[in-house]
Amino acid sequence: MLDEDQLIRSLRARVRDPEGVLGIGDDCCIWSPAGPTCLSTDTVVEERHFLPADDPRLVGRKAAGAALSDLAAMGARPVGAVVALTCPARWDAEALVDGIITELDRHGCPLLGGDTTGGGMLVITVTVWGEAVASAHGTPRLLRRSGAHPGDLLVVTGPLGGSLRSGRHLRVEPRLAEGQWLAGHPAVHALMDLSDGLAGDAPKLAAASGCGCILLPSQVPVHDDVPLMSDQVSAAMCDGEDFELLAAVAPEMWPILQLAWPFPRPLMAVGWLIEQPGAFVEDAQGRLVTMPWRGFVHTG
Amino acid sequence: MLDEDQLIRSLRARVRDPEGVLGIGDDCCIWSPAGPTCLSTDTVVEERHFLPADDPRLVGRKAAGAALSDLAAMGARPVGAVVALTCPARWDAEALVDGIITELDRHGCPLLGGDTTGGGMLVITVTVWGEAVASAHGTPRLLRRSGAHPGDLLVVTGPLGGSLRSGRHLRVEPRLAEGQWLAGHPAVHALMDLSDGLAGDAPKLAAASGCGCILLPSQVPVHDDVPLMSDQVSAAMCDGEDFELLAAVAPEMWPILQLAWPFPRPLMAVGWLIEQPGAFVEDAQGRLVTMPWRGFVHTG
Repeated sequence: MLDEDQLIRSLRARVRDPEGVLGIGDDCCIWSPAGPTCLSTDTVVEERHFLPADDPRLVGRKAAGAALSDLAAMGARPVGAVVALTCPARWDAEALVDGIITELDRHGCPLLGGDTTGGGMLVITVTVWGEAVASAHGTPRLLRRSGAHPGDLLVVTGPLGGSLRSGRHLRVEPRLAEGQWLAGHPAVHALMDLSDGLAGDAPKLAAASGCGCILLPSQVPVHDDVPLMSDQVSAAMCDGEDFELLAAVAPEMWPILQLAWPFPRPLMAVGWLIEQPGAFVEDAQGRLVTMPWRGFVHTG
Repeated sequence: MLDEDQLIRSLRARVRDPEGVLGIGDDCCIWSPAGPTCLSTDTVVEERHFLPADDPRLVGRKAAGAALSDLAAMGARPVGAVVALTCPARWDAEALVDGIITELDRHGCPLLGGDTTGGGMLVITVTVWGEAVASAHGTPRLLRRSGAHPGDLLVVTGPLGGSLRSGRHLRVEPRLAEGQWLAGHPAVHALMDLSDGLAGDAPKLAAASGCGCILLPSQVPVHDDVPLMSDQVSAAMCDGEDFELLAAVAPEMWPILQLAWPFPRPLMAVGWLIEQPGAFVEDAQGRLVTMPWRGFVHTG
């Protein structure tokens, strides 16, 4: 395994700092923010978010992609990332870092710093930050979970379920373009990304906005990765690590939003927000019942 | 052990967001930077940076203090921090977080977000960011390692050595006030913090500035934590995790700087920069010899 200085030198040679930015090699990186900035830190841990036999490049990709998904969840454009790598000798640190940088590059996010240590178990923490983008619709903004109102539709950016079982979770596609577009549209009131299943996450968005929610399980788009012979609805409601976006949309603007949506996979309405606190679903007979699912909980 | 949602709720109740800042609870935190911003990520790992028997509050303190030391090394004022905690059930997560928050609070740094996961080994990654402060001497600036010139004096903010052996490393005192003062003084050309021993770190500052360095081992202040019966000079040159600052100072300004220095522990000159690349020491006979020490390397 490379020692820390070797790894930093190899990184240093690989990445190019944007104009006016100080990247890897000093005690801190330095950049000049253009406006309000959002930041998230995200950790993936061996045996919990990936397995010892997984491809290190894909593990690196997942670590970076999952972090970038938090920027997508605010509608932000990535500005920079730093990586903290705790890496046992049995993992290929260069391949891990290659996977991280490749994924960051794919989304225009420069790697500006990091810290590497040894340890008995692979732990990767990626911290990313970003800024609001200008849009044709209004002033740049970062979308929180808390801006929604009772009556808002809940919409998702893609089909859900089967991510962990299929290995799709290692090929995270952070919905950065979709998030930026949604943050630029005044009909969108709140946004988050789905990592703990719609059944776990929709109530979080609702509660942050002082609302409850009703979900329509029959309307939730099921991912092709969910086996046909399984309980497809439960999988789409509860599986973790979809990394699609969940938005709250003014209902009167929903037709306009759908028509303007420029991405190939359609936005799908899966429920709405209500004044009454709590999480509910409409059953097959059209009756409201308390949400029977809890969402996904990482264990291990 | 608390689950992630419980820990986040307990955190949320404990911290107060500064005016206009969105802290813990959304996909990202949001703040409005006032100018150029510097950021660092720093990891401490069980068995490597602390022991399983160490007090969790001190371990949390160390994780936060070591990260803040990187802001001190740029002369920055802390603006925010996020914490990624990979925590086995045998560690008291609340006590760890209490130690982290107490240390951040002590330096006016709000905790604005985090991520917690389980895992077989305790790993804490603290990411901190900060800004330059205005000073009476000139425009605010962040001090890099790379601004020094041949002839500059190398000075340290305090005595060195014995930190790991004595347990002082768990009670990191990030030299934030000293760093901000040094960054505000035009006589100071470059700055870094000492984590890998003066023998390891001074050559890094020199190389970043396109210089070599000469150290005077007999001038290096030895910390009281270094046992009298040991090789005190080697300890002061090579022990890790001092977290004092190393600055490069214009030699003609050194008397003025010393007289203006407002802190109780005096600045000490320990060497100077030269044009010739490499690291040298003056031996007891006044002869220049190649540096006989390598600095501190974390292992384990």
